[in-house]
Parts: sequence; C-alpha cells; structure tokens
Amino acid sequence: MIDLRSDTVTKLTDRMRQVMFEAEVGDDVYRDDPTMRELEEIAAKKLGKEEALFVTSGTQGNQIAVLVHCSLGEEIILEEGSHIFRYEGGATSAFAGIQPFPIKGERGMMSAEDVEAAIKGSDIHEAETGLICLENTHNRAGGTVTTPKKMKEIYDVAQRHHIPIHLDGARLMNAAVALKRPMTDFTQYVTTVQICLSKGLGAPVGSIIAGSSEFIAKARKWRKRLGGGLRQAGVLAAPGIVALTEMVDRLEEDHQHAAWLAEQINALPRVSVVGKVETNILMMDVSETGHTANEFVALLKENGILANAFAPTIVRLVTHYDVSKKDIEETADILKQLIAEKCVK
Amino acid sequence: MIDLRSDTVTKLTDRMRQVMFEAEVGDDVYRDDPTMRELEEIAAKKLGKEEALFVTSGTQGNQIAVLVHCSLGEEIILEEGSHIFRYEGGATSAFAGIQPFPIKGERGMMSAEDVEAAIKGSDIHEAETGLICLENTHNRAGGTVTTPKKMKEIYDVAQRHHIPIHLDGARLMNAAVALKRPMTDFTQYVTTVQICLSKGLGAPVGSIIAGSSEFIAKARKWRKRLGGGLRQAGVLAAPGIVALTEMVDRLEEDHQHAAWLAEQINALPRVSVVGKVETNILMMDVSETGHTANEFVALLKENGILANAFAPTIVRLVTHYDVSKKDIEETADILKQLIAEKCVK
Amino acid sequence: MIDLRSDTVTKLTDRMRQVMFEAEVGDDVYRDDPTMRELEEIAAKKLGKEEALFVTSGTQGNQIAVLVHCSLGEEIILEEGSHIFRYEGGATSAFAGIQPFPIKGERGMMSAEDVEAAIKGSDIHEAETGLICLENTHNRAGGTVTTPKKMKEIYDVAQRHHIPIHLDGARLMNAAVALKRPMTDFTQYVTTVQICLSKGLGAPVGSIIAGSSEFIAKARKWRKRLGGGLRQAGVLAAPGIVALTEMVDRLEEDHQHAAWLAEQINALPRVSVVGKVETNILMMDVSETGHTANEFVALLKENGILANAFAPTIVRLVTHYDVSKKDIEETADILKQLIAEKCVK
Amino acid sequence: MIDLRSDTVTKLTDRMRQVMFEAEVGDDVYRDDPTMRELEEIAAKKLGKEEALFVTSGTQGNQIAVLVHCSLGEEIILEEGSHIFRYEGGATSAFAGIQPFPIKGERGMMSAEDVEAAIKGSDIHEAETGLICLENTHNRAGGTVTTPKKMKEIYDVAQRHHIPIHLDGARLMNAAVALKRPMTDFTQYVTTVQICLSKGLGAPVGSIIAGSSEFIAKARKWRKRLGGGLRQAGVLAAPGIVALTEMVDRLEEDHQHAAWLAEQINALPRVSVVGKVETNILMMDVSETGHTANEFVALLKENGILANAFAPTIVRLVTHYDVSKKDIEETADILKQLIAEKCVK
Repeated sequence: MIDLRSDTVTKLTDRMRQVMFEAEVGDDVYRDDPTMRELEEIAAKKLGKEEALFVTSGTQGNQIAVLVHCSLGEEIILEEGSHIFRYEGGATSAFAGIQPFPIKGERGMMSAEDVEAAIKGSDIHEAETGLICLENTHNRAGGTVTTPKKMKEIYDVAQRHHIPIHLDGARLMNAAVALKRPMTDFTQYVTTVQICLSKGLGAPVGSIIAGSSEFIAKARKWRKRLGGGLRQAGVLAAPGIVALTEMVDRLEEDHQHAAWLAEQINALPRVSVVGKVETNILMMDVSETGHTANEFVALLKENGILANAFAPTIVRLVTHYDVSKKDIEETADILKQLIAEKCVK
Repeated sequence: MIDLRSDTVTKLTDRMRQVMFEAEVGDDVYRDDPTMRELEEIAAKKLGKEEALFVTSGTQGNQIAVLVHCSLGEEIILEEGSHIFRYEGGATSAFAGIQPFPIKGERGMMSAEDVEAAIKGSDIHEAETGLICLENTHNRAGGTVTTPKKMKEIYDVAQRHHIPIHLDGARLMNAAVALKRPMTDFTQYVTTVQICLSKGLGAPVGSIIAGSSEFIAKARKWRKRLGGGLRQAGVLAAPGIVALTEMVDRLEEDHQHAAWLAEQINALPRVSVVGKVETNILMMDVSETGHTANEFVALLKENGILANAFAPTIVRLVTHYDVSKKDIEETADILKQLIAEKCVK
Repeated sequence: MIDLRSDTVTKLTDRMRQVMFEAEVGDDVYRDDPTMRELEEIAAKKLGKEEALFVTSGTQGNQIAVLVHCSLGEEIILEEGSHIFRYEGGATSAFAGIQPFPIKGERGMMSAEDVEAAIKGSDIHEAETGLICLENTHNRAGGTVTTPKKMKEIYDVAQRHHIPIHLDGARLMNAAVALKRPMTDFTQYVTTVQICLSKGLGAPVGSIIAGSSEFIAKARKWRKRLGGGLRQAGVLAAPGIVALTEMVDRLEEDHQHAAWLAEQINALPRVSVVGKVETNILMMDVSETGHTANEFVALLKENGILANAFAPTIVRLVTHYDVSKKDIEETADILKQLIAEKCVK
Repeated sequence: MIDLRSDTVTKLTDRMRQVMFEAEVGDDVYRDDPTMRELEEIAAKKLGKEEALFVTSGTQGNQIAVLVHCSLGEEIILEEGSHIFRYEGGATSAFAGIQPFPIKGERGMMSAEDVEAAIKGSDIHEAETGLICLENTHNRAGGTVTTPKKMKEIYDVAQRHHIPIHLDGARLMNAAVALKRPMTDFTQYVTTVQICLSKGLGAPVGSIIAGSSEFIAKARKWRKRLGGGLRQAGVLAAPGIVALTEMVDRLEEDHQHAAWLAEQINALPRVSVVGKVETNILMMDVSETGHTANEFVALLKENGILANAFAPTIVRLVTHYDVSKKDIEETADILKQLIAEKCVK
C-alpha cells in the first residue's frame, strides 16, 4: 500500500530504532532523564525560545498553550479551519473553558485587520481576548505557508493589545524548508510555539512546545494534569533528537513529490488540485469524477493507495519519508487509470 | 431623554407595581411561592411545553439550556451573530465546556443545509454536536423574524440527527406579533425555549425557560448552581404575569413606531436603515455622515436621545413601551436637524 | 403553620412592600438604577469594603468570589461542613474548575494550624491553593459564631502565604448581633464577603458581595455570565435597603427565641440540643425518640410545625422574623406533647 | 545511588530495549499499530474486561475514567489520601468539572457504610454522586492491600445505587501478588480499572485502562483531547507487553525486600515503620530522630540513598526491580549508622 493519508503514518527509521535502543534514561517526572533534557535544549535553541518541553502530541501542546495563556471565560482568536478549532475535539472549551472566535482566512491566514476587529476587552457582555492562535503550515488550507512578514503584521496587532500569540507549528519545519529560512524567522513573532516530531520528521511519538521559562514551568504542571508526565521518556527523546537534527532538510523531497504529483493531476481530466501546492499536502477536487470523496478514496484503496476524504468532494494526499518517488509515479499512473475507467464520461 | 438604547430599559407599569405590592409570596427554593407557580403555569401553556421555569435573565435561561442539553466536550451550532455566542461572555465554554460552532446566516437565520453540513458525530477528532440554537427575533440582524416554516426546515434536520434545538426567544413575542401567529406556532419546532419578561413586555426582572418536565427538573438544579434560586420570588412573578398576559399585543405599537421612524430615516440624506425593519429594532447606517457610530451616539445624547453604537458605523434604535409616538416624532425631527447641521456636506 | 425550616422563608414586611412599590428604577445592566446604587453604597460602607454588588443569592455571591479569586486548576481550603462545599451543587468544580479541600473544624471553624498545613504551592502533583473560605455564622455546625480574634489567626496565615480569604457571611449579621460588634470587626480579616438580605433580614430576594473595586469590576462580569445581571433591579434593592438598615438589630429577638426553645428542649426527655445555641439555629437530636429525623419532621408537620431533617437523627429548627414568642411557646408545648405521646417509652 | 524514591524510577530491562528495537509499528490514531493492539488485548484479558486502552500515564487513565463516567456538576466519592484527590493537580475539577468528596479510610480503604452515607441524589442543593473511586494498593496509606472481599462490600453498595466504580490500580499487580490471587479477583468488583506499566513492572512509559467496549470507545475520544493519541505507539507497547507478561510475578521479591528492611528499621532506635508493610512501600517515622523528614532525606542522600519525604516526619522508601537484596542490606547498614551518629541522643 502507498500510504498518503498523512505524514503522521511515517514509521521510525533504523537510525531512530538504534538510538532508542541505546538511550540513556531516567524518571522524567523527577527531571532525571538526560536524553529528554538534551532534546528539550536542542529544541529550545532551534525555536529561539528560553525553554522547551516534550509533550505526547501536537494536540497536547496546543491545549497546554491555551491553558497557560488564557484565564477561564476568555476567548481565543483563530482561523476557522485551524486544527485547534476543528480537530482537537473541542478541548479548548472542554478543559480551559475558553471560547474560540473563528475568523475566515485567506489560504489559512487571517488578516491583521480582521484580527484587530475581533479583539474584545472588558465589556461585561463579551469574552475578553486572551490569545491569538496561528497555524503554519496550515493543514486544512492545503499545507499553505505563511511568510514571517505576514506573521509580523498580526504580531504588531497583538503587541499593541498586549495579547500573546501561540503558533501551532505542527508542520513549521515544512514552512521553513519551503521558504529556505530558519524556524526562528517565524517564531520571533510568536510568544509560544508547538512543533511535531512525529509527522514529516518521522519520530514515533511526540511534539515540542517552547516559550519563556515561566511559560514552561506552568506548562509542566498542566502537562502532568493532562497525563503527559512520562517516566523513562528518553526512549522517545532519542528518536526525537534524530528527527530534529537530521530529518528536517529532507522535507524538501516530500515537497518536490507533492509538486510533481500536483502537475500530473492538473494534467488529468475531471480532477484538479485546489490552490497551489506549497509543501507536502495536496488537496484534490474530485467533484467532476461522478464520485464523492469517500467513494474516490475507496476506489484508491482498491488500487493500493490510501488517502483521506477531507470534504465531500476533496481528497487529501500527503507525501512523507515513507513515500518514494516511485510511489508517487505509481500513484499518478493509478489516478490516470481510475479517471479513464471509473469516472463519468 | 428619549431612551432608544434597548427595550430592556422599559420601566415597570403602575399596574405591575400594584400587583407586586400585593403579591402572595413563599420560599420558591422550597417551591412554596404561589404567584411564581402561577406564572410558570401560564408561561408553559403559552409556550406549548410541559413545564416552565422562571430565571433571572435571558442569559441564565440560555446557559441553563446548554448545560442541560449538552455533555462536556460537545459543540453547539448557532448563528455567528447570535446572543449566546456574542453577548454572554463566553459562558457556554466557561461553564458548560461547550464549543460554539458559528455559521453565517441570512438575516440571522442559518440555512438547514449549512446546519446539516456542520453536524459532527463520534469521530475522535471532533466535538460531537449536542445542540442547535436559534434566535428569533434576531437582535444583531436587526430584530428580524424567522417564520415557523423556516424553523421547521432546521427542525427536520435536527430530528433526523436526534439533536435538540433551543430557541433564544428573548423577543419571540415580537416575532409572534409581527406574523400575527401564536407563540406555539414557533415553539412546536424547538425542544426548549427562553423568553424575556423584561424587554418589550416591561417586567422589571426575569425570563422564562420552557420544555419537558424532565428538562425543567434538571434546569432547576443548574439554576440553583448559577445562583438563580430565589426566595420570595412572587414579587417578580406578579409583574411577570402582567407582562405575559397583558403586554404582548401592544408590541404591535412598538413595531409601528419603528417602521414609521425607518421611513423617516430613509427619506433623509446620509443615513439609511439596514435591511427592512420587521419588529422594534432599527439599525441605522451612519457611514455617510462623517461620524463614527460612537460619535453619532454622542451627538444624539447631546440632543436628548439615547442609542447604542452597534458596529463601527451602525447605530441601533429600539422602540418600546416607554417610547411614545410623540417621542418617535421628536426623534425624527432631531435626526433631520443633526443631518442638516452636524454632518458632512 | 409555624415555619421553622429556615430563615429564608421570612416574608417581606409591609414596609418592604411599600418601598418596593415606590422604588425609583433604571436598567441596572447599564448601571442606571439609582436605588440599586444606593443599596450597594450602603452595603459597602457597612462591610468596610471599597465596593459592593447585589447578587440574586448567596450561592451566586460565593461562586462569583471563587471565580474571581481563583484560576482554573487551583484548590480552595474550606470547612468540611461549609455551605460552599455541601449545598451549592458542586458549582465551584463545575464552573470554576476548582477543587475543594475540606478540613474538619471545631464548631464550624478550622484551626489556623490545619489551614496552614493544607496550603499547597507549585509542586506539579498538587492543585495550588487559590483561596480560603470561611463561614460565619456556620449553618451546618448549628449557627455557631466565630470571633474576630479567631478569624484573625487564619487571616495571619493567609497573609503570610499571599492567599485571599472569602467569607460566606450569609448570616454574618447574626454573628455581629450575637457578639454585639460591628460587621467590620469581622470583615477586616477577609478579602471579600457575602451577606444575605433574604434570610433573617427578610428581604424577598438577594445577597451582597463586597471587596475591592477591582474585585467588584471582575465580579460584575462573572455575574453577567451567571445570569445575575438584572434590569429594573431597584424593586429588589429597595427592600434590601430596609433589610440592611432596619432589620439587623432585631435579630437579637430570634436569638432569644432560639435560646429559650433550647432550654425547653433540654428539659424534655429523649430530645436534646446539639452544642450550645449561639444564634437563631437549633439542632435537635432525636435519636432517643424512636424516630428518625424524617419521621420526627413528619410528626411535627402533622401538628402544625415545619422543620428540616438535617442528618439521620438531627432536626434543624430556625427562628426568624415571622416566628413570634407565642409561636415558640406553642412549639415547646407541641414538642412536649409529642415526646409524651408519640415516642418510645 | 540506591534509588528508593519510587518504583517509577525503574529503568527498562535489556529485554524491553530489544523488543522496542524490533517493534512492528503503525499509526495508532488510525488504529494501525499491531503491537499496541496486541498489548491492549492481553491487558483486557488479564483484567477481565471487554477492552483495554493504552494511556501515557496513570493520571491520564484515572482522569479519562472520571471524564467518561461522570457528567458535569457531579461528585466522586474517594478516600481522602487517594492519588486522584492528592496528586493529580486537581484535574478532576479542572477538566471534568467534578467535585471530589473525600472520606477518611482505614489503611486507605473507605468503609461501605461511609460510602453509602455519602451518596447524593437529585436534591438541588447537592452534587449527585457519579462515581466511586478506589485505590489498591493504596500509596499514601503505605502500599496497603484491600482484599476482594472488602471491595465487594463497596461494590454491593454501588450496585444498589447504580453508581459505577473506578479502581486506580496503578499497583494492583502488587496487591494481586501479595494475596497470590489473579487481578480478575479484584477487577470483578469494579466497572473500570487503571494499571501502571511503568512502576514496578519497569516499562518506560504508560498505563492501561480497561472496561466495557462502550467505555473504551468514549475513552479513546477523551484520550485524544488530553493529547494521549499517539502515532507509532508500538515502541511503547512492546516493552509494555514484556511488563505485563514477564514482570508481574517478580514483584514478590520487592515485597520481600521491603518486609526485610521494615524488620531492620523496627529493630533500630528512634525510627519505626508506620503500620505493617504489605507490599513494596515502606513509611518510616523519623519524628524521634531530631530531624524532619526533609532533613532526614538529605542525610540519606549524602550517604547514597534517595528517598522521598512524604509528610513532615514520614520518609517513604519504595523497593523495585532496580533495587537488589544487596542494596537493601546496604540501606539497612546506612540507616543504622545514621541513627547512631546523626540523631539526637
């Protein structure tokens, strides 16, 4: 099977298995795990923040940010398609008691004007704005990249109103590679950031959140409440270090695969790519095929390709470490054949 | 001063003062208050539901509905300008742990298609839909009325998915009077409803929620937690009975006043009414006056008229029992004069 | 019926009806109600705090204090029989997300040592202490009074640890009258306080919370979320002013009635008063009567007396404005007769 | 250093490293990880429940149980020293909005009578009882074992009142080994159970919760919200399988070590063991040494032994896989020497 459902399916590399096997460990709740401390130091440096903390998933990292930054009854401003609003089970409201205020963005990015207009203060009828959340690259918008310059516009608004910004950077590495710029070019404009080790970077488990030392101290306590306080966490930290130090640059390859596949798709009848493919995510419109996205995904599966139905007529394809150029070529061939044989004439 | 800020400013009538003075009372936490029981029975009948419960405000009634209908971590679907989402301080998330999922409506009413597309189930990434909320008349949309027929379309969707509907009917009486139909024509399509006694109806304090006996039993407990369990509540129930039995039909007058004022405004240069005035709320666009809404409100105040800035260039005017035809005529005169003298040429 | 269930059953006096009838009102959400502002100013002065705020019940006042003082995930230290822990439906946890840490007190008062030992800090395993709550008089302990001196001991601990104190003073007036000291002698040792207008003082509805101006500003917003933002609230404020300025001193009478009744009970066989009656609450042990508290309450009801079963063998009797000396004498007679005729020999 | 702070410090065995190295993996959020499915099946069988689910910590497992079993505003009955109440940061209140109702137990076990007396129903003043939580072995009581017979007494009460029971069995394996009975003898009397793989069993990370299929389906969604949805989780499942199938019986050794050490301590002057050591936890009273627990722990550390201060004069010592008989003998020698040289005469 060629698995294009998500980059989360990436299996750990042999090198990761090796370092995991050899990892020096300790009880990380007591902060005794040397490998974890090393990972957190490397991550803090790469993200340009005082301290970093390992969490077991991107969702956990994002939720901790909301829990630390906001007070009960406040509101967060975020893009209407963002992961925090759409795919974290309503956790910001369930746990932190925070109301999301979603704004429609352009390719996943809210305008600074819209953000400023949505900021609320002490009026007793309204939930005060406690946090602004960004997502880069933006998954639902199709792996789109927001430039540091664009981020700065929102940053300026946030600064003026003394509101912190959290960046859901689950795939920030893809944005950095796409623009050939260091991650700190992006993170300089946010208060805290979350990045995923287990998506394109291939680590088996985990994400990182980074911010000030004060933020991390509070985050550590919320992580414990959420059940993310681990014991011999070094077994996860070791492949995490490999992910962060050896696996970032190769994301370029995934981007090339996605771009090449997009070209093939756009050359086919009845299917087309939504927007421009900027990183490793490709949204394919199947509305002219005579099939719903679910039906099309089923057809792909019968032919050895796994993908996700993302909307009624949108199929999402994601490239990653376990998808080779050959896999992509085969995918293009199968698509061509499906269009020819199984779609409306 | 002519107070057009809201119908909530209505002062109680002499008749209300009299019944309040004479009210038979008891401890309503022990359910010993005969006047309150009478009000609740009248309200249940008028709303076509098994039982009704007095609450101290519309916000409390709406929040209780969310607390009873939903389970922690679920989502409610509501119109993006609705009171529950905009003007209740983010309480649904703060107290019930519920995420709002706002949908843009047409004149305050979501389409049944949009509602159905937004319904979520057991997927572990998503917050399951626990409730659909409607608002009729719709305040932020300008006192617009949704017909029972339109409500039925959403009701049919909700029934199909086994999801309850709560109606924020703070001004449902205005909708009923505008369409000359009983309130039950509307409430037959919702599981529970909240109506306000202290807006156009003129009671000093309070709202009513109504639904099944099982709903009201649970509502009573949540009301106690929210601090809405009152003692000698009969002093509020007595004017509430007057409001519900003697003050509904006269809302027609407020509607006529608003319609007449809208005509005058639309005949003036530089200002115009947004949409069509259907009940007692009038949204006036001042963007061509050279003033912001806040500035225009200040000008009005200097001239003896109180109004609210509703958006950067929108001023809201609301008619009610304490605003006579003469007041409305005076308002028209003052507006005419302000446009002539204080606005850009 | 002689109603000894609670002082909450007190009906409003004719004088209260009169001022209510005449009350000048306005929309209190807009802070336009002159009578309410007067009540709040009087209350702030009597309680020795910068500002005061009307709330619709003691529960609402206590919950607002918790919501303002604490942050999500913190703990409050309180006496194990306190109203906030026992009779507010778990609202501190449901709404504020706060864990109660109950401590067994002596006659309703925790020792300063126990409080200090229970204070928790930043350890990631523990919920940080955000608030200490006191109750005076203490209902469940039988209307017991805590002296200002004893309160100061806890105050000193709290000061040392920078933790605020909230006083549930629903019946603080009874404590003040019992010790013949002003309420400020007690409130000087707490950050915020709640007092009830609708218990012994006889107002139909409402409580007051008082604290710093900053506290009250935040409290106002939480009150709105809880649904306690009222419109023409002056109709409740007017009798509240009477309650606070004319009805406090007469509580002495209720205390005398309760003390006299306690003497009669202790002179009877098979029943006895638990502890010493200090104010208007009397806990009667019926374990030797051959009846449970529920059965004994039913017997009393058959004979024209209403009381509450407070524990399996404890019946609570509460004196108040609507219970005359003659009522108390009749109660004593009926008890005597019941013991003689309906209890085990 | 001899590390007696906790059995959580146990490092993974070479065998665990090996299986981790070789683990077959998949994306566990998509339920594609075969090793994880194997672990969950083994665990469900050993615990006698329909299904089991891996969670990243005992805290996460316990919190999920509360979130699934309870509704907002309810209460859980638990022992006052239980982990859920004391060491999970107030998470039940913060996340689930649930109020704990702590009861003092005997050696960590509440009596069935006390539990029954604490159960609350629909009275509007009270938080309805939604769950009873047990802990076996009980950490804070000193690793004490509750027999299945004793658990059945509470089970019978719970059944009668239709209330579920959750067992915090982080160290249930120690209880089972101590009584030489299968875990199912205990779990037959509870609705759901949580066991820890990373304490005495030595797995690097993780716990298991088990219950009905319906419970696990809901648990899976809450786990995602808490951030416990892992990707290539097989790397943690593989050592977990070793823990559960090969490491349970050897806990007997830890118990023998603790019992032997307790004998030595009780033979020394100035220190004594609190209660009877039943499993691998030993509480040592140092109140007669002239040192506080913190000071005594510091003394031990200077001499190569790590332990935790558990209360002002109680030091906790925990035996586990990484503590050999020789380590225990050395510990006894050092204690003897410290008492002789560093304690009051």
